[in-house]
Amino acid sequence: MSTSPGGTGHLYGVGVGPGDPELLTLKAARIIDGADVVAYFAKEGRRSNARTVVASRLAGKRELPLAYPVTTEIHRHDEAYRTAIGDFYAEAATSVAELLDQGLTVAVLSEGDPLFYGSYMHLHCRLAPRYPTEVVPGVTGMSGGWSAAGAPIAQGDDVMTILPGTLEETDLAQRLAGTDAAIIMKLGRNLPKVRRALASAGCLDRAIYVERATTEGALTMKLGDKVDDAAPYFSLVLVPGWGALR
Amino acid sequence: MSTSPGGTGHLYGVGVGPGDPELLTLKAARIIDGADVVAYFAKEGRRSNARTVVASRLAGKRELPLAYPVTTEIHRHDEAYRTAIGDFYAEAATSVAELLDQGLTVAVLSEGDPLFYGSYMHLHCRLAPRYPTEVVPGVTGMSGGWSAAGAPIAQGDDVMTILPGTLEETDLAQRLAGTDAAIIMKLGRNLPKVRRALASAGCLDRAIYVERATTEGALTMKLGDKVDDAAPYFSLVLVPGWGALR
Repeated sequence: MSTSPGGTGHLYGVGVGPGDPELLTLKAARIIDGADVVAYFAKEGRRSNARTVVASRLAGKRELPLAYPVTTEIHRHDEAYRTAIGDFYAEAATSVAELLDQGLTVAVLSEGDPLFYGSYMHLHCRLAPRYPTEVVPGVTGMSGGWSAAGAPIAQGDDVMTILPGTLEETDLAQRLAGTDAAIIMKLGRNLPKVRRALASAGCLDRAIYVERATTEGALTMKLGDKVDDAAPYFSLVLVPGWGALR
Repeated sequence: MSTSPGGTGHLYGVGVGPGDPELLTLKAARIIDGADVVAYFAKEGRRSNARTVVASRLAGKRELPLAYPVTTEIHRHDEAYRTAIGDFYAEAATSVAELLDQGLTVAVLSEGDPLFYGSYMHLHCRLAPRYPTEVVPGVTGMSGGWSAAGAPIAQGDDVMTILPGTLEETDLAQRLAGTDAAIIMKLGRNLPKVRRALASAGCLDRAIYVERATTEGALTMKLGDKVDDAAPYFSLVLVPGWGALR
């Protein structure tokens, strides 16, 4: 429906939300349903989480999986990682550009929101200057998390800070002590360190652990009640703010 | 459809997204369409922005407007403001509870996401302990803003900070200097101060001004190119991070 013979196709970065297929926006549904090709990033040999969210819409659709050559096997600050991942994003952009040059509309799926810690931005910065491009925002994983927990996260003059769990413990603790509300992402093996940082910042009691929010198998609990330190990479810790009423 | 005679009704906090009616989620659309009553906050005599987003779905629907007695006429730290607004939220919760007690399903609309700087949380904390309650997350105004600007906001190990423009200038500047990415909300009359804080933190060049993103009349520009200091309260300044590639 969206081919434009003789012209170039349109690129869409489409946020598919935190996991529940019903948390797709009406616009994302329309763009995906009308796209000639649906592209998504995934680890080699693994399913794409973003694709899983919209799987029921993809019958008969042309797909373009973009498989990361490395993810956590090499440290992200390692030169080899940077080279491999940089080459990969350049090649992925080339693959998408070839489709756009054929006049095809390409929807690149992103979990959550495309420009918020998403891989889509690596295509966006390479392709948006050359092709008609639109970004469709999505519900973030953190919104899914605090909604599932029923936890008002920030209000009024609260300062809210989003922190990767990869930060050094003292840096994490200082930042936690200086903010009203916080979200800590990228837990995985960082969870024991994150607990220590929360404790030394005095906010361990308020911390909520959220796993796979809005999907089957979702888990929400006080972090203090979680007895083990096993956490998937995409789990979150929430520290609700709402200072005005505390 | 959703009355439960003899039982209590269900409360839903429903995020309607940043403004474009197409950025409603499929779930929000279903909950609103099935609700017996749609409630929303608004300033006395003004239209509710959240209601405007879903106006086309409300034909024949019972509505419950909840009109703030005060907004910016009295300073928010003033005792009179706190008393008036506290009484108001308590009365609003009572109005909603009366409907729930009749077995009616009530959907409370929120611009953006209900638990992220939204008024819905004042009902949630009063009613969720007493009634079956579910929060439907929405696309935030800030996601709408950076998507409209096509600006990758954060990536990798970036720290992102959400700041109210109401903070003191020196506090704002220090926090801006110590983060990779930032969102400054509540601009309005605070814009000149926000500019000075951005300049002293060395990030004025990167700052993007966004107004009414995803709606008609949307405006996106480099803050440095904005010649006046007129800004609606709900406009935003974005400071993109993405430290890894800068």
